[in-house]
Amino acid sequence: MRWEARVLVRLKAGVLDPQGAATRSALESLGFSGVEEVRVGKLVELAFQAPNREEAELRLAQMCHKLLANPVIEVFEYALDAGREGSGCGLA
Amino acid sequence: MRWEARVLVRLKAGVLDPQGAATRSALESLGFSGVEEVRVGKLVELAFQAPNREEAELRLAQMCHKLLANPVIEVFEYALDAGREGSGCGLA
Repeated sequence: MRWEARVLVRLKAGVLDPQGAATRSALESLGFSGVEEVRVGKLVELAFQAPNREEAELRLAQMCHKLLANPVIEVFEYALDAGREGSGCGLA
Repeated sequence: MRWEARVLVRLKAGVLDPQGAATRSALESLGFSGVEEVRVGKLVELAFQAPNREEAELRLAQMCHKLLANPVIEVFEYALDAGREGSGCGLA
């Protein structure tokens, strides 16, 4: 069975975010005043096979812990949906 | 008034995603079989000032078009919420 997942990976609160700071500064340079904070994270969308939802959640959590997020400095959340077979990825 | 936005930036369908391909390959190397596709995008979370929702949406769309996304190869979507003053960013 095909599953589609959306994973959001964020830096933990308190971890410096130079990419976010650079983005904030660039927005200010472009004339956008009033931007107080910018944090940049990752969006990872996956399509994968798993026999049922329980197994799919388990595998997805393992993928996040082992590769998609760095648990020392990042946190993640995900949403998991049953995908349609042969639908292409539906991710783009 | 303070606004908090979450912007998701994705590569358009058909645009090659080498980071996604590398992630898929790395997952396979780690023993996760059955991963069919991985697409990697950006998550940008902002806190900014704007007098009302209409103005906030307008500014946010401009920020996306001008800096946060590359409209040639990327698409974006956003969610906008009224933030709480003095709440810290609430983004991390």
